Amino acid sequence: MQLLKDKIISDGIVKAGGVLKVDSFLNHQIDIPLYNEMGKEFARLFKGQEITKILTIEASGIGIACIAAQYFNVPVVFAKKMQSKNLDGEIYTSQVHSFTHGKDYTIRVSKKFISKADRVLIIDDFLANGKALIGLINILEQAGATLVGAGIAIEKGFQEGGRALREQGINIQSLAIIKEMDENKIVFKD
Amino acid sequence: MQLLKDKIISDGIVKAGGVLKVDSFLNHQIDIPLYNEMGKEFARLFKGQEITKILTIEASGIGIACIAAQYFNVPVVFAKKMQSKNLDGEIYTSQVHSFTHGKDYTIRVSKKFISKADRVLIIDDFLANGKALIGLINILEQAGATLVGAGIAIEKGFQEGGRALREQGINIQSLAIIKEMDENKIVFKD
Repeated sequence: MQLLKDKIISDGIVKAGGVLKVDSFLNHQIDIPLYNEMGKEFARLFKGQEITKILTIEASGIGIACIAAQYFNVPVVFAKKMQSKNLDGEIYTSQVHSFTHGKDYTIRVSKKFISKADRVLIIDDFLANGKALIGLINILEQAGATLVGAGIAIEKGFQEGGRALREQGINIQSLAIIKEMDENKIVFKD
Repeated sequence: MQLLKDKIISDGIVKAGGVLKVDSFLNHQIDIPLYNEMGKEFARLFKGQEITKILTIEASGIGIACIAAQYFNVPVVFAKKMQSKNLDGEIYTSQVHSFTHGKDYTIRVSKKFISKADRVLIIDDFLANGKALIGLINILEQAGATLVGAGIAIEKGFQEGGRALREQGINIQSLAIIKEMDENKIVFKD
């Protein structure tokens, strides 16, 4: 998606250690018109798939998922990373390793909100090693729900997550795939 | 706002300890058309205030803020609760006590995204004791930004936060204010 690639080039900052900072428009401050264009693009890419629900994960996925959901006319469910008094009853859990935060954490989704009847699109802001996505897919498997695919804003194509998951037959659509990057340049796949 | 009150009556569940579960439509699974109506109502309530930015806090505030921001044509900034490699440089911090999670935490906003020139509307899902809201207001004070007011989905009117902050002259607009509640009934103010 050219608009997102242009924004990454103009406002993204590459830091040491393979970190791409896009906090001015994607995951700290949020450019709402950009989110809307991303939402429309996801709707185009997953058109006709009879999606019943969008699943994402707190925190940065929530805004993208909510704006996108307007173009699918379905509810959003977001997986929680923190134990909470507000999350009781039967829940699906999965373990995820975060390289950003350097630790494992548990993600949780109430069993009330994902069922066998659901056809689910996962939406998230980043795909790198794929650990968060694998955790979300694992929750859908526990629920017996159908995974339609995953819509990702930015994929770090030089990490393994996307390739490994596509080889399993998962329909991953990333709006911008970065082939390589360093402090001086960012190169996208096609 | 009648639509939200009706939803709380039909789908909200009151649990022991003053917990109102609205996870089927507000803060775990999300009813997007409801969020849109809430966004329109915030836009009506804060019309003509020349708002330049919406500030919220992860995680449950993000979706409401993003959907609402479409009716204000301004960016969203969300305060972060976790330390992250992606949050470097100069940041505003404030301490918040969470009764839900039973501990203190630090909220963080990059100095790049809130300035003296900003007229800020805070949006959040709940107002109870007001600790999160006070933390966000403290960050705006550090930035020298103008606080226009706070738009809240559900206020627990039987707790102190809303009254105390209104007495300080802060324009708090809550779409549903609960006067009292127990396992059998929920009573709204007005």
